[in-house]
Amino acid sequence: MKLIRYGQPKAEKTGINIDGVNYDTSAFGEDYNEQFFETDGLSRLQNFVDENKDNLKEINADERIGCPIARPSKIVCIGLNYKLHAEETGAPLPPEPVVFFKSTTALTGPFDDIVIPKDSVKTDWEVELAIVIGKEASYVDEAEAMEYVAGYCLHNDVSEREFQLERNGTWDKGKGCDTFAPVGPWMVTKDEIRDVHNLRLWLSLNGKMVQDGNTSDFIFNVPFLVAYVSKFMTLLPGDIISTGTPAGVGLGMNPPMYLKPGDVVELGIDGLGTAKQNLRAYSKK
Amino acid sequence: MKLIRYGQPKAEKTGINIDGVNYDTSAFGEDYNEQFFETDGLSRLQNFVDENKDNLKEINADERIGCPIARPSKIVCIGLNYKLHAEETGAPLPPEPVVFFKSTTALTGPFDDIVIPKDSVKTDWEVELAIVIGKEASYVDEAEAMEYVAGYCLHNDVSEREFQLERNGTWDKGKGCDTFAPVGPWMVTKDEIRDVHNLRLWLSLNGKMVQDGNTSDFIFNVPFLVAYVSKFMTLLPGDIISTGTPAGVGLGMNPPMYLKPGDVVELGIDGLGTAKQNLRAYSKK
Repeated sequence: MKLIRYGQPKAEKTGINIDGVNYDTSAFGEDYNEQFFETDGLSRLQNFVDENKDNLKEINADERIGCPIARPSKIVCIGLNYKLHAEETGAPLPPEPVVFFKSTTALTGPFDDIVIPKDSVKTDWEVELAIVIGKEASYVDEAEAMEYVAGYCLHNDVSEREFQLERNGTWDKGKGCDTFAPVGPWMVTKDEIRDVHNLRLWLSLNGKMVQDGNTSDFIFNVPFLVAYVSKFMTLLPGDIISTGTPAGVGLGMNPPMYLKPGDVVELGIDGLGTAKQNLRAYSKK
Repeated sequence: MKLIRYGQPKAEKTGINIDGVNYDTSAFGEDYNEQFFETDGLSRLQNFVDENKDNLKEINADERIGCPIARPSKIVCIGLNYKLHAEETGAPLPPEPVVFFKSTTALTGPFDDIVIPKDSVKTDWEVELAIVIGKEASYVDEAEAMEYVAGYCLHNDVSEREFQLERNGTWDKGKGCDTFAPVGPWMVTKDEIRDVHNLRLWLSLNGKMVQDGNTSDFIFNVPFLVAYVSKFMTLLPGDIISTGTPAGVGLGMNPPMYLKPGDVVELGIDGLGTAKQNLRAYSKK
């Protein structure tokens, strides 16, 4: 299944994408949140869709698409997880994963604008494969870790490099600004992805390809990461682990290059759909 | 007011502490969560308490006390915010605040056990003043920042120093383990705290005082911190900012000293109550 959420921010309704068409599933009566995943919502949703297949209402093509997951308890991110990206940032290959957090207030839809924060001069892009956790995970064995995965999403781990690296602190300061986590269009259940470790992922800036990698270049793979993070904290159903970005970010260019208002970023991952975000400057609401 | 939550984990009911006695407020019908703070719940709760003063049911003294805030969207922490603590860790005085996150799954009650994680050898204590946000805050001016504060809590920012400092990553790995954020006993509304920048805070280990500081030693004060964090992310009602710890943590001792099963930690802050936590080793549920 490909889960979607659509409608205005903070008032999204649920839906599902079948063969390229978005259908409303509000009548299912639950949001795609922690409780949904915790109570085997995916099976129940599948039954609902099977039973109502012929009566599902098509969603208007001009509806806004939101983040397909409702309010996860956390977004855990992995740094430097592609061999080529680690090289471009000048960092040595990590002996174990770099872990940091994104504030969940950064979540936004896959076609929403990315807002360049006030006083930002180094807003950068990072196409990433995001794992969605399906059930509570604590000290999970790597051999069983895939049982805790519900599915995957496309994620742009937008990053302010000055805030992240030059402002006296951990990376978190440059990762959690509002709109810095466009996720979607879909949450694709894991059964639809034949080999999560062989997916092309790419990102273009103003039509020019800047990132073009493959998850086969992962330093740490999906089951390893789920098991690893679960040693440091309990992962809840609906939580997101974003698995790092391949080579080609602005920080790694010579000279470095950052996003400015009017820029357009497009990105995609095999099987997880594509997204498109316009950049705009911060303005008071 | 002094807000409390009591009962079994994940099933806490609400209450209030008046003159040292805990009373049930379940009939108020709302948990102390984001929506409560967002919709001026503190004023409505005050009215409820005034109207029902003579009929509030006393809570049994043997009831477990939980974290007084229900599921905040995030716990933002400030590192090295006391002059003396910055000196003991060997770090230079920070030019601006160090910011990191604690996973909200670390939240626990003020008298619950602290679980030493599997393979942990450096679990440490940190008594801290925690700020609770009262309304959505983004790019807030320092002069107006106090309007966004609902109140304060006592917090033990439990930290695994090896995970935090020696495991190839940002601090987050050593801060968010389960039970690493005992908060409470109370959320004290800001009107009850005459001067938040002149509060004694202390922590004892097995009866021996190890931390004994005062918020007058803050490098960055409460309105500065609220304004500062709100430049990097939107703070939601109920969110927690923990303001750093004074000198006297295990890491700073010579030689360093860490927590072991059977240890007892007691802590307190003027006006915010006291807490007591027993240490125990991790065991599979």
